[in-house]
Amino acid sequence: MKKLLDGWEALCAASKLLRFLDVNLRGIGQVMFQDNPLSGLLFFIAIGWGSAAAGVPQVAIGGLVAVVVATLTAYWMRVDESALRAGLYGFNAYLVGLALPTFMNPSTTMWVYVVLGAAVSVVVTLALTNVFKTWSVSALTAPFVLTAWLLLAATNAFSGLDGGALPAVGEIVPIAPAAADPLRFGDFVQGIFTSITQVFLKGHGPAALLLVAGLAVNSRAAAIFALVGALVAVVTAHLLGAESELVTAGLLGFNPVLTAIALGAVFHRPGARVIVLTLLATVLSVIVQGAMMAVLTPFGIPTLTAAFILVTWLFLLPRLRFD
Amino acid sequence: MKKLLDGWEALCAASKLLRFLDVNLRGIGQVMFQDNPLSGLLFFIAIGWGSAAAGVPQVAIGGLVAVVVATLTAYWMRVDESALRAGLYGFNAYLVGLALPTFMNPSTTMWVYVVLGAAVSVVVTLALTNVFKTWSVSALTAPFVLTAWLLLAATNAFSGLDGGALPAVGEIVPIAPAAADPLRFGDFVQGIFTSITQVFLKGHGPAALLLVAGLAVNSRAAAIFALVGALVAVVTAHLLGAESELVTAGLLGFNPVLTAIALGAVFHRPGARVIVLTLLATVLSVIVQGAMMAVLTPFGIPTLTAAFILVTWLFLLPRLRFD
Amino acid sequence: MKKLLDGWEALCAASKLLRFLDVNLRGIGQVMFQDNPLSGLLFFIAIGWGSAAAGVPQVAIGGLVAVVVATLTAYWMRVDESALRAGLYGFNAYLVGLALPTFMNPSTTMWVYVVLGAAVSVVVTLALTNVFKTWSVSALTAPFVLTAWLLLAATNAFSGLDGGALPAVGEIVPIAPAAADPLRFGDFVQGIFTSITQVFLKGHGPAALLLVAGLAVNSRAAAIFALVGALVAVVTAHLLGAESELVTAGLLGFNPVLTAIALGAVFHRPGARVIVLTLLATVLSVIVQGAMMAVLTPFGIPTLTAAFILVTWLFLLPRLRFD
Repeated sequence: MKKLLDGWEALCAASKLLRFLDVNLRGIGQVMFQDNPLSGLLFFIAIGWGSAAAGVPQVAIGGLVAVVVATLTAYWMRVDESALRAGLYGFNAYLVGLALPTFMNPSTTMWVYVVLGAAVSVVVTLALTNVFKTWSVSALTAPFVLTAWLLLAATNAFSGLDGGALPAVGEIVPIAPAAADPLRFGDFVQGIFTSITQVFLKGHGPAALLLVAGLAVNSRAAAIFALVGALVAVVTAHLLGAESELVTAGLLGFNPVLTAIALGAVFHRPGARVIVLTLLATVLSVIVQGAMMAVLTPFGIPTLTAAFILVTWLFLLPRLRFD
Repeated sequence: MKKLLDGWEALCAASKLLRFLDVNLRGIGQVMFQDNPLSGLLFFIAIGWGSAAAGVPQVAIGGLVAVVVATLTAYWMRVDESALRAGLYGFNAYLVGLALPTFMNPSTTMWVYVVLGAAVSVVVTLALTNVFKTWSVSALTAPFVLTAWLLLAATNAFSGLDGGALPAVGEIVPIAPAAADPLRFGDFVQGIFTSITQVFLKGHGPAALLLVAGLAVNSRAAAIFALVGALVAVVTAHLLGAESELVTAGLLGFNPVLTAIALGAVFHRPGARVIVLTLLATVLSVIVQGAMMAVLTPFGIPTLTAAFILVTWLFLLPRLRFD
Repeated sequence: MKKLLDGWEALCAASKLLRFLDVNLRGIGQVMFQDNPLSGLLFFIAIGWGSAAAGVPQVAIGGLVAVVVATLTAYWMRVDESALRAGLYGFNAYLVGLALPTFMNPSTTMWVYVVLGAAVSVVVTLALTNVFKTWSVSALTAPFVLTAWLLLAATNAFSGLDGGALPAVGEIVPIAPAAADPLRFGDFVQGIFTSITQVFLKGHGPAALLLVAGLAVNSRAAAIFALVGALVAVVTAHLLGAESELVTAGLLGFNPVLTAIALGAVFHRPGARVIVLTLLATVLSVIVQGAMMAVLTPFGIPTLTAAFILVTWLFLLPRLRFD
C-alpha cells in the first residue's frame, strides 16, 4: 500500500493535473478524516453508487462540482499550501455539494447555489479554523453545517430556490411508544450499514462496505471504530425507544459513527481509557442527535452532522491526557 | 465557625471517606458559589425538605446520585485536584440531577439518564471552563444548562424517555394585560422566598430560610445580595406586568438572585459602583428571563439558569475595575 | 473639509459641552463606520426626516435619547477614552434607541426601556469587544442586535411592554413563486435607496441621499460601496425570486449594504481581489438575510443587522491578505 501511494505521490509531484486530482480525492477522504487519495476514491465510488441506486445522480455530481470549486477557490485565496494538499479545504464543500441536491429540487439556480456554497465553504472553513485554533481543536464539519443550514433555510425566502425535499416545518411532537416497533435482524444489520453511509447523506447499505474499505486502506482503527460506533448507536437508539424506521435508515447513527472515529482513532491513540470515553461520547451522540432533530423541527432544516460536532468538541476541549 | 471548619478539614485530611463527603457537600454549596461543606449540607437539607413536601423525593435523590457520580467521574478523569476539592465538578451535576427528575416522569431509563447526565456534566464542565478561561470568566452553570437542555430535548425523540413534566411546546403568545393580577402581600413575600429556592428548581418558601442560612455561614454579603436580588426581581417583574402566578412561584426571580450574588458578592468586592451595576444586572436578568421563556416556547424546554449565565457573562466580560 | 473638521476639533478641545456633542455625533456616524461628526449630523438629520415623514417622531427621539444615555454611561464606566471619543460606545445604543420605538407601541415603560437598553448596550459592547479581540475582529453591531433581541423578545412575557409592531410569530412558510412579482423600474430604484435607509430601520427613499452624502464627506469609497452593495442586493434578491414588496422596502438590502461598506471600504483597502470577495459576501448577505427571516419566524423578532454581522465576521476571520 505504502509503495502504491509513494508512486502516486511521485506522479503528482510531476504533474499539476494529477496534483489537482490528488487534492480533490483527499478532500473527499477527509469527510471521514482520511488524508489518503485512495480512501477518497473509494468514498467517491461508494457515493456515486448510492446516488445512482437512489435515482438521484445529481447528488454525486453536486459533490464533485463542489469539491472542485472549493479547491480552485482555495488556490485563489492563497491558503496554506500544506493544509490545502491534505484536503482540508475540500471535505466541507463536498458535503455541501451532496446536501444541496439532496434537500432541494434540481434547477439552474440550484447549480449556481452549489457553486456559491462551495466557494463560501472555503471562507467559512478558514474563519472557523481560526476561531477554534484558540482552543487547539479542529473545526470538524462545522463549516459544512453552518453553510448548508444558511443556504437551506434561505430556500423559504426565495421562490427561485426550491427546498422541496427539506424536512417539514412543525411543532415538536414527542414520538409515541407505538412508533418504536419491535426489531428484526435484517433491519438491525441494515441500520448499522446505513449509519455509515449517512455520513455522506445516503442510506444505501451495500455502499457501506466500500466506505469501510476506504477507511481500512488508511487506518484499520478508523474502520473498526466506525463499525463499533454504528453498532453502539443502533443498539442505544433501540434501547431508548427510537422510531425503528429512523434507526434502520441510519439517521440516528451517522453522527455517532463520526464521533467514534474522531475520538477513538483520530484525535487520541486507542487505549482502555480512550475506549471508555469514546463509548460514552458515542452513546451521547445518539441522544444529542435526537435532541437536535427535535430542536430543529420548528425550522424545517436537517440536523446534518451537528450532533457529532457538538459532542466531539465537548470531549476534545477538556484536553484530557491518556498517557 | 472557622474552628469548626478547621476541625472538619483535619478529619477530612485523615479519612478518604470524609474527604469524599466533603467534596460532594462543597459541590452542592457551589450551586450558590459557596466553597463550604456546611453551606452544602444546609442546601442539601433544604432541597430534601422541599422535595419531600412537594411529594417528589426522587428530585432530591437524583441530585444526590448525580453529585456522587460526578465526583467519581472527576477522580477517574484525573482532573485538577484543587478545583475538584473546591466542589467545582459537582454543582453542575447536582443541578442536572435535580432537573431530570423534575421534568421527567420516573422510570428505570430516567435513572440511567441521571447517571449518564452526571458523568457528561463533568466533561462539559471541563470543556466550557477551558473555553471561557480565554476571557478569564467562569463557565458558571452553563455546563448544567447545556447538558440538561440536550437531555431534555431528546425526550421528544425516544419513547423510552418520558418528559411528561416539561413545559408545553407552542407558539409564542404575549401575556395578556389581565393575566397580571393585582398583588397581595402574602404572595409578594412568597415570591421573594421562592425566587431563592427556585435556584434549586423548587418552589418552597420556608426552605429559603435554610438556603439563606447556608449562604450566611460562609458569606454574609452573599446572603444579603440573595435577598436583595429576590426583592428587586419580584418588584421589577410586577412593575413590568408579569403574570403574578409566575412571580409568586419564584420563576422570574431565581436567575436575578444568582446574578445578584455573583456580581455583588462573588466576583467583585461590594462597593457603591458595584452595587449600581449589580442592580442594573439584576433588573436585566428579570427581562432576559422573560425573553428566554418566550424564545424557548417553540422548543418546550425550560430556561433553567440561562438568563443568569448570559447576563453575568455580559457584566463580567468587560472586566471593569472598581478601585 | 479637513480645515472645517480641524476648526471643530479645536472648539471641542476648548469646551466640554461641544466635546460631548462631538462624541454623540460620531456615535451616530459609526452606525456606518464613519468616525466623523459631520457624517453623524447628516445621518441624524436623515433619520429625523424619515421618522417625521412616517409619522413616528418617537423613533428619532429614541435614538437621540439612547446615544446620550450611552455616552453618559460610558463616561461613568471610565471606558477607554480614545474609543469613547471615536463614538464606539454610541452607535449600538443609537440603533437600540431607533429599534425599540420602531417595534413597540409608545408608553412610559417604553421610554424607561430605551434608557435601560442604552445603558446595557454599553456593557454588551465592552463584553463583546473583549470576546472578539481574541480574533482581532470588531464586534460590529452585535451588541445592538443582542440587546434589542433580548428586550424585544421579553415584550411577550410582560403586559407592561407592548411589542405591537413586532413581526408576527408563526410557522415558517416558503414564499410562493407567485409572490415574487415582476419588477418595475421605479420600485427598483426605490429598493436601492431604501436598502440604504433601512440600515437605520427606516424605509424612506429620499433620505438615502443624505446618508450617502454623510458617507461621502468622510469616505468616498464607503459611499460607492454602499450604492453598489444596494444595487447588487436588489438585483440578487430579484433574481432569486424574493417577494418584490420586501425588496422595494429595502428589507433584503440593508444587511448587504453594511457588508459591502465594511469589507470593501473599512476593513480592507479597495483592490481587485477585495472587490471580488466583497461582491461574493454581498450576495451571500442577501441569502443569509433570507435565512434569518425564515429562522426567526417562530420567535416573532426582527432580523436587524444579524446577517451583516455573521457574513462580515466569516469574511474577516480568515484574515486574508491582499497585498
